Amino acid sequence: MRELLAPRSIALIGASGDPARLTARAQVYLRKHGYDGALHPVNPRSPEVLGERAYATVEDIPGEIDFAYILLNTEHVEGQIAAVAAKGAKVACILADGFAEAGPEGLARQQRCVEAAKAAGLRLLGPNSMGLINIPARIAVSVNAALEAPSLPAGRIALVSQSGSMLGAIMSRGAARGMGFSHLIATGNEADLSAGEIAAMLVDDPGVDAVMLFLEAIRQPQHYAHAAWKAHRAGKPLIAYKLGRSPYGAELATSHTGALAGSDAAAEAFFRAHGILRATMLESFLELPALALGRRPAVRPHRAVSVLTTTGGGGAMVVDALGVAGIEARVPDATASAALEAVNMHGHGRLLDMTLAGTKPDRIEAAIRALDKAGDTDAIIPVIGSSAQFRPADAVAGILAAAPHVRPVAAFLVPQADASLKLLAEAGIPAFRTPESLADAMRAFLDWRAPLAAPHVALPDIALPEAPDEADARDLFAALGLRTVYSRELEADHRFPVALKILSPDIAHKTELGGVSLNIPDAAALREAAAAMQASVAKAAPAARLNGFLIQPMAKGLAEVILGFRRDPEIGPVVLLGAGGVLAELHRDVALRLAPLHEAEAREMIAEVRALRVIEGWRGLPRGDVEGLVHAIVAVSRLAALPEIREAEINPLMIHQEGLTVADAWVVRA
Amino acid sequence: MRELLAPRSIALIGASGDPARLTARAQVYLRKHGYDGALHPVNPRSPEVLGERAYATVEDIPGEIDFAYILLNTEHVEGQIAAVAAKGAKVACILADGFAEAGPEGLARQQRCVEAAKAAGLRLLGPNSMGLINIPARIAVSVNAALEAPSLPAGRIALVSQSGSMLGAIMSRGAARGMGFSHLIATGNEADLSAGEIAAMLVDDPGVDAVMLFLEAIRQPQHYAHAAWKAHRAGKPLIAYKLGRSPYGAELATSHTGALAGSDAAAEAFFRAHGILRATMLESFLELPALALGRRPAVRPHRAVSVLTTTGGGGAMVVDALGVAGIEARVPDATASAALEAVNMHGHGRLLDMTLAGTKPDRIEAAIRALDKAGDTDAIIPVIGSSAQFRPADAVAGILAAAPHVRPVAAFLVPQADASLKLLAEAGIPAFRTPESLADAMRAFLDWRAPLAAPHVALPDIALPEAPDEADARDLFAALGLRTVYSRELEADHRFPVALKILSPDIAHKTELGGVSLNIPDAAALREAAAAMQASVAKAAPAARLNGFLIQPMAKGLAEVILGFRRDPEIGPVVLLGAGGVLAELHRDVALRLAPLHEAEAREMIAEVRALRVIEGWRGLPRGDVEGLVHAIVAVSRLAALPEIREAEINPLMIHQEGLTVADAWVVRA
Repeated sequence: MRELLAPRSIALIGASGDPARLTARAQVYLRKHGYDGALHPVNPRSPEVLGERAYATVEDIPGEIDFAYILLNTEHVEGQIAAVAAKGAKVACILADGFAEAGPEGLARQQRCVEAAKAAGLRLLGPNSMGLINIPARIAVSVNAALEAPSLPAGRIALVSQSGSMLGAIMSRGAARGMGFSHLIATGNEADLSAGEIAAMLVDDPGVDAVMLFLEAIRQPQHYAHAAWKAHRAGKPLIAYKLGRSPYGAELATSHTGALAGSDAAAEAFFRAHGILRATMLESFLELPALALGRRPAVRPHRAVSVLTTTGGGGAMVVDALGVAGIEARVPDATASAALEAVNMHGHGRLLDMTLAGTKPDRIEAAIRALDKAGDTDAIIPVIGSSAQFRPADAVAGILAAAPHVRPVAAFLVPQADASLKLLAEAGIPAFRTPESLADAMRAFLDWRAPLAAPHVALPDIALPEAPDEADARDLFAALGLRTVYSRELEADHRFPVALKILSPDIAHKTELGGVSLNIPDAAALREAAAAMQASVAKAAPAARLNGFLIQPMAKGLAEVILGFRRDPEIGPVVLLGAGGVLAELHRDVALRLAPLHEAEAREMIAEVRALRVIEGWRGLPRGDVEGLVHAIVAVSRLAALPEIREAEINPLMIHQEGLTVADAWVVRA
Repeated sequence: MRELLAPRSIALIGASGDPARLTARAQVYLRKHGYDGALHPVNPRSPEVLGERAYATVEDIPGEIDFAYILLNTEHVEGQIAAVAAKGAKVACILADGFAEAGPEGLARQQRCVEAAKAAGLRLLGPNSMGLINIPARIAVSVNAALEAPSLPAGRIALVSQSGSMLGAIMSRGAARGMGFSHLIATGNEADLSAGEIAAMLVDDPGVDAVMLFLEAIRQPQHYAHAAWKAHRAGKPLIAYKLGRSPYGAELATSHTGALAGSDAAAEAFFRAHGILRATMLESFLELPALALGRRPAVRPHRAVSVLTTTGGGGAMVVDALGVAGIEARVPDATASAALEAVNMHGHGRLLDMTLAGTKPDRIEAAIRALDKAGDTDAIIPVIGSSAQFRPADAVAGILAAAPHVRPVAAFLVPQADASLKLLAEAGIPAFRTPESLADAMRAFLDWRAPLAAPHVALPDIALPEAPDEADARDLFAALGLRTVYSRELEADHRFPVALKILSPDIAHKTELGGVSLNIPDAAALREAAAAMQASVAKAAPAARLNGFLIQPMAKGLAEVILGFRRDPEIGPVVLLGAGGVLAELHRDVALRLAPLHEAEAREMIAEVRALRVIEGWRGLPRGDVEGLVHAIVAVSRLAALPEIREAEINPLMIHQEGLTVADAWVVRA
């Protein structure tokens, strides 16, 4: 979409003639940074703005408009949308805030803008958008103060940010390390165009090699999925930094933009499933493009690296930080050891210390090439000491010579070594300022995988009553292929001992109202328990609709799990597997994936829940029915295909040596 | 100890006349950086070294020697120790490696050096030491290549590092941010002088305000404890970065220096108990001195801060990163809100966004002063956007004006803003490059507490047999005040059902050899079980000494814990509390403290073990005997006073509503 990414005719609505004002900046910056397309200030009070011909209204502008930047106050925006649409512009960008993030009135205002725009085929950027910078095309239609810089660092990395101020922060930090950008686009509230949709456009741009995403919330997740597929085909990595890793951050990110908060675990699952690399540190966010550029996600990463160093302490710091991130600095294998011996080096530990071998460029190059022979590592980490400070060209020459011929290389420079960092960055080699950011980037890189297509799910018609009770929930799971044994008849041929429960769509916590009775030994006791329960529940919850009783055989499993389905407000349907019992919640021992999912993902989930090692033969304990659990997870994930279901859960699901027992279940309609 | 920290007469033993060689560097650097004391190269092959009078042997040197730097190869070091000692030098520093870290032969060589030195009253620095730099005194007796810098950043922060190369790395990184150093000392293998002992000396130096410790291992923990007390009294913070947070890092740190690996949890407990701040990131290590300098540990920290920002996205990043570190960005309380209103600002969220209030210096200053009125936060975090890049003086003026009058301030600058960082650093205000390093430093700062004196423990004489069995272990715990109910008589008046166990000092895993029988209902069954057990164990472990049987009543608790004592190879006696049962190990749900400990620390341990919330009234569950558990932890920690005990454990210890049951116990002699 050329009119968004590289507009050639721009209207600035509400452009000020006072250069000290925010609303003057876009015009100042456009000219300062060499924009040579059509530029039309709109200002009813002046026929000239900052020396350029101005118009009283949008419709007075001669010729066509690609991009209108509305710089007016919140209350005047709505009126201009219609005018801009009537003029036939393709994109309107809104600077003002005071929309969805400002309460119901603002939300309504935003929705009216979106409807008006949609009706006219006009796309919106913002509200609360700092605009757009296309550096190679010399288009800086933005009020971002970062444009005060004398020149902008041109390059092939695009940034889309929901936060406008982060455009400048990332551009300046990138420039300082020799990194250049193609586009920097602020999406603000994303009433219409989301970062995901714009990322998909950027992937198509031949001037873009990678797209960075600074996100406060994920809106319109389908666009990210689409962008991720295109990016994967094109070999252009998508790299995200997303707020909301802590509850305070999540609260703020959403109050700031008017989005609903999903869980960070869901966001994490979303990024993984779509092959989007996620940095958890600002530094690693900036270095990940260099690490991922031109690379593909590893099919079966070893989660191990080869580390060489010219300084013991610095190398040890890297090995330690990598270890904290779950990545092993591996001892050279036989092949790599032989290659090292051939150049008269000897690696016998986790760290190839070059101090004895010599740290001249040809020695470093030889060491990297020898370590590349290892069959069991994913990357090579050179750690350079004081030479990086005093003899930059020398210090990095060996890395520069070897890097094009070997697996991914990521360097750590131990002292302050700006010149060396710059030499490496200019050669496209990721070079880190701290061991911790190196470890975070490497973790994100090794977590990276190809995007996963959701499996196709065809479900039979499932008729769920308006107010489902536990029996309805069990029938739902049974329709998905999860057998559950229960009866609604008191006088039947039960397998005693049994549990008795009240059936009601209105009672969520049955136990607390006397609605559960366990270990009932025989038919007489069952009758008695039912009578007592009826009386007790009727007294405790007189308004609840009672649908009778549910009787099930008592069971005890090797382990208990919680298996749930819900719709995350940000990213949509997810399936959740957690250890059961009172301790599970204390330990937050849970795995989460997008739904529906594949068997392989269900297996990963089981491996992630630590408590489930007890059914995987750990410490000689009897093995549980892992295959049955895999199928149960896949089955529950298929609820994604039933839009009428908001949440559903089996809790607990008991795992036996053979088979599973649905011990309790519930479902909530959308 | 002046001869170590500021030597005025230095011998360089093995000084080379070839300036390209490592062994020439110390002399080159001493002269380059302005050393004006006595300097004596020792070189048997030349009467002159680099233009200075040289001597064939140490004894030829006229006058006294404070400090001898032995630059010779490993095999020649030992001979020189005697010569240096005979000359009456106070300190010998050894450059060579090949000692304790190089296997038994190296260890023996190191021990011989230590003994020779000790006999003569000579102190050793190293082996494997890069030497010492005292910047204000212009003494750079070191081969560290960082001394190639044209000048060295003088200041009042001392660094002691076990890694020599980190001296240069930290000095250069510090210099780049306007930080100056008094001393930089490399301790290497620490055969004699440890970082802890040197830290204690540095604390006494009036030119030192804080001591940074870069550690691979903790040796001679008592010296750190001593240094910490002195530092606390003097108001000079000790700040550590220690390797070994991951198993790979721990393995490397110890193979590198020949130390034994303790657990990182023990190191963590050690730092906390002694009031040493621990950074887990290189960046936060560098900024912690500025944050802690002139401050005292908070008595009851809120673990909450006040955040103000000139940019939404940057502020949100900080709030999120702080939240991940367990620190809340708090909404201004009523007092702070009123103070903000008084200057026409309105803070209603976790982030005081200054964009509306204006970002001029006087507004920033007013906001910081108003937020300082809050009664429930520990620090103030100003986050500055693009102005930090383009108008440094303006951007930081408000912070500089307010900081001297308010609680601790730590700034984050969102764009690349080197000039602003430098202005803040020069004013002693911690200023961070990343939200993550700010959060880590703030976490370390809020974890900081005054050093804790270990309680005095007087124990009765406890006679433990050479080969203790379970009954002996129980008697040991009983002597500490932990009542345990058991009998060794089969024919006694038991409270059935009981458990029966074989008693043997040689059988660690009784269950596997048929040495445990549970739920025995009566006396007849007990006799039978005993006979069967005797036969089974005799067959399975014919060589084991059998001391009869142990009979105990069956018990079931609200929760089970593991309560253990051991001697960590690095830091010494520790007590450990973990959740019991098979899941505990999977979740690593454990708390650890130095032993012996105070009741308050035992309470903290209980609060740290997540699974123990089940005995603290969580979710309406019955409360367990928390006070009993507190006393049990204190009792077990007193084993520290019995050097003959290496390890001891109660596993499980059952917690009842009232009382505890020692269900199993063992002890290992040193």
